[in-house]
Formats: sequence, structure tokens, C-alpha cells
Amino acid sequence: MENSAKNGIELLGAKTGNCIRAAIALEEVSATYSVRKIRLHSGEHKTAGYLDLNPSGQVPTLIDHNQGEQPLVLAQSNAIIFYAAEMQPDTILPVSDPRERARALERFFFFITDVVVPSNTAFLLERFGDAAGAAVLYQRSIAALAVAETYLGQHPYMAGDRFTVADIPAVTIISSMSSNIDWSQHSLLNRWYEQLMARPSVTAGMHAFD
Amino acid sequence: MENSAKNGIELLGAKTGNCIRAAIALEEVSATYSVRKIRLHSGEHKTAGYLDLNPSGQVPTLIDHNQGEQPLVLAQSNAIIFYAAEMQPDTILPVSDPRERARALERFFFFITDVVVPSNTAFLLERFGDAAGAAVLYQRSIAALAVAETYLGQHPYMAGDRFTVADIPAVTIISSMSSNIDWSQHSLLNRWYEQLMARPSVTAGMHAFD
Repeated sequence: MENSAKNGIELLGAKTGNCIRAAIALEEVSATYSVRKIRLHSGEHKTAGYLDLNPSGQVPTLIDHNQGEQPLVLAQSNAIIFYAAEMQPDTILPVSDPRERARALERFFFFITDVVVPSNTAFLLERFGDAAGAAVLYQRSIAALAVAETYLGQHPYMAGDRFTVADIPAVTIISSMSSNIDWSQHSLLNRWYEQLMARPSVTAGMHAFD
Repeated sequence: MENSAKNGIELLGAKTGNCIRAAIALEEVSATYSVRKIRLHSGEHKTAGYLDLNPSGQVPTLIDHNQGEQPLVLAQSNAIIFYAAEMQPDTILPVSDPRERARALERFFFFITDVVVPSNTAFLLERFGDAAGAAVLYQRSIAALAVAETYLGQHPYMAGDRFTVADIPAVTIISSMSSNIDWSQHSLLNRWYEQLMARPSVTAGMHAFD
């Protein structure tokens, strides 16, 4: 476990979509954090030391050493995104305008529950040898992108005129699916995607675990 | 569409886990709301009128007529839970204590992404005739409950000493899985579940769409 900083914020993880999303959120709010790589191939996420931090044995885990005597240990990539967002109120999670906030939450959850989790589940089924089940789920994840296209017909980002938490799961999952998307059917998504992939927080987050 | 109130808050939905979770959140913060039942069997959620409100054609949808001239329309059950929670700050979503808030978010997302969505996805695969794939996902959802048991070893509710947003997806999904749970392996969960099922907000939410 390199970089075992005992102050500031540590993000423990590997180069997976869930970890990259957490890193993009931290980058977006200009948090100072260090990365500690967890070796999934050698099962480091299933060791007693890691399970103490994250009983589900998943990555990422965030450790915040700035919260008093005991470090604050946080599992669940989506909880980490909210935690990061609230370090800098009203940046990637709108606070002052209830409509804007509601829309950011709505679109964030759309991507998590209708695109990211089904797609991660498809990956799991593939590993279990269930190619047919995996195909059903991939297809649904991709079909859901038609809804994302309607979002972008209303405004330049997924939840309005500025980048929010909703854009984070959107960009990581679309990046992982990009070769299976019929871009001719998603011209607004295409423009948004190219712009997002050039955004510094996204670039930095994508490479945080290199 | 009965009860088409044009003031206050309307919750459009049917008797599904996603709709019941939204109703429990509204009950828990003592919101005044009316229910508008959407007839899934006759495809009402795929009609143009409903798709205007909810382009994914899913239930529930919340309409808040108290947000100025235009009603605020909100899809995604989890976004509705957050919206409800923030009507009464620091009730079911802790605000003042950062640790308590982080834990509530962590446990909420644990249930959503590791138990509820895989279980909903299993149901979908079953409908597609993929019983083997469905079984893999059901089994993972149930296995994840071992982690919930460790949460309850720390405190009486899923995220601390009081009921929070984390208990909402927990109680609806455990209710739908209850006959497949080996309760002898989950004694703390069993005690928590019996207590939760007797909680007025849970009872009211479970019956909101009867």
C-alpha cells in the first residue's frame, strides 16, 4: 500500500469505473487527495485489513483524516461522490435552486440505476458464463441512452447549464460503452461526450489509478 | 387518473418497491401528498401523457405544485427520497454531523446498488426467461445482507441510532425477499425487520398504492 498518507484525504481503489467516478468528483471540487492503489488481481480487496475499512470488499474507499481524531472511512462510490460534492457546496451539486438540485439528483440516479448498475451487472453475468443475460442488460443500458439524448436537447449538460454530479456516471459509463453506441442516433450525446472527455477533471480522474 | 390534485404534492405510481420507497420517505417527513395510481397492466406508464412527465416510462413520478408557477416534476425513486428528506432537514438525512451523514449516504447506496438494483434486475431477467442469470443475482443480493448484519452490530438502525434514508430501501427489499432469507443467520436483521415493519411510515408507505 504505497502513498499511505496519514493526513488529508486518501482514495483507495483501482482502475475501475466506480473508482474513476469518485476520482472525477474529487478533481472537480479541487480536493487535495492521494491515491492508494489496491491490487485487485492479487485479492488485496479481500484481505482482513481492507475488509476492516470496507466490509463489502469493494473499491473505492475514501479515508478523510481531517475529521477529528478518528479518520472518517467511507465506502460506496456514490456516497463518495456526494461527500466530495458537499466539500464545495453548490459546485457539482446545486444547493440554492431547488429545481436545479432536483434535476441533478434525478439525472444522477438515472445514470446510476438505469445505466451503470445494469452494465456492471452484465459484466458480472458474463463472468458467470451467462452471455445471453449479459446481452439483455447491455442492450437495456444502451437503449436508456435515448433518454440521455432528450436531456441534452434541453441544455448542454445532463442536468442543466453546468456540469453536475449527473455528468460523472454518464461520462464513465459512456466511455466504457462507446464502441457499442450507434453515434449517428445520438448526435447531442456525441458532442457532449467529446467535450466532457477533454475536461481536465475527467482526464485527471480517468488516469488517477494508472 | 383519480385524485388529480392541482395543488400540494402528487405521487404517481403503482404498488412496486420503487414507488413504496418514495411513499415511505414522504410519510416519514410527514409530507402532505396525494397518490395518483398509474395502471401498469394497461400500459398507462407508456402513454404520451405519462412519458411527458417521465421520459423513461417508469414509476414513480412526483409532482410538486408548491414550487412556483410551473410544477416541479421529478422522476427516479431515489431522487424523490432525497427530495422528501430535504423537505425536513436533519430528519431522515442527517445534516449537522458529517460522520452521521456520510454513513447514511454510504448505507443508502449500499442497499440501492448492491441489493435493490441487482434484485430488480433479476426480476427482469426472469421475465426474459433467464432463470440461471436471475438466480445468480438473487443470490448475490441475499449474500450482501451479511454486510447489513454487521451494520446492525454497530447500532440499532442501518446507519446509526435513528431511522435514516438507509433504512428505506433496506426494508422494502428485505420485505420482498423475506421468504428466501435464512433468518437464523441474520438475527439482528430479523429484530430490525420486525421493528421496521411495525413503524407507521413503513406501514402507510407499503399500503399507499392499495
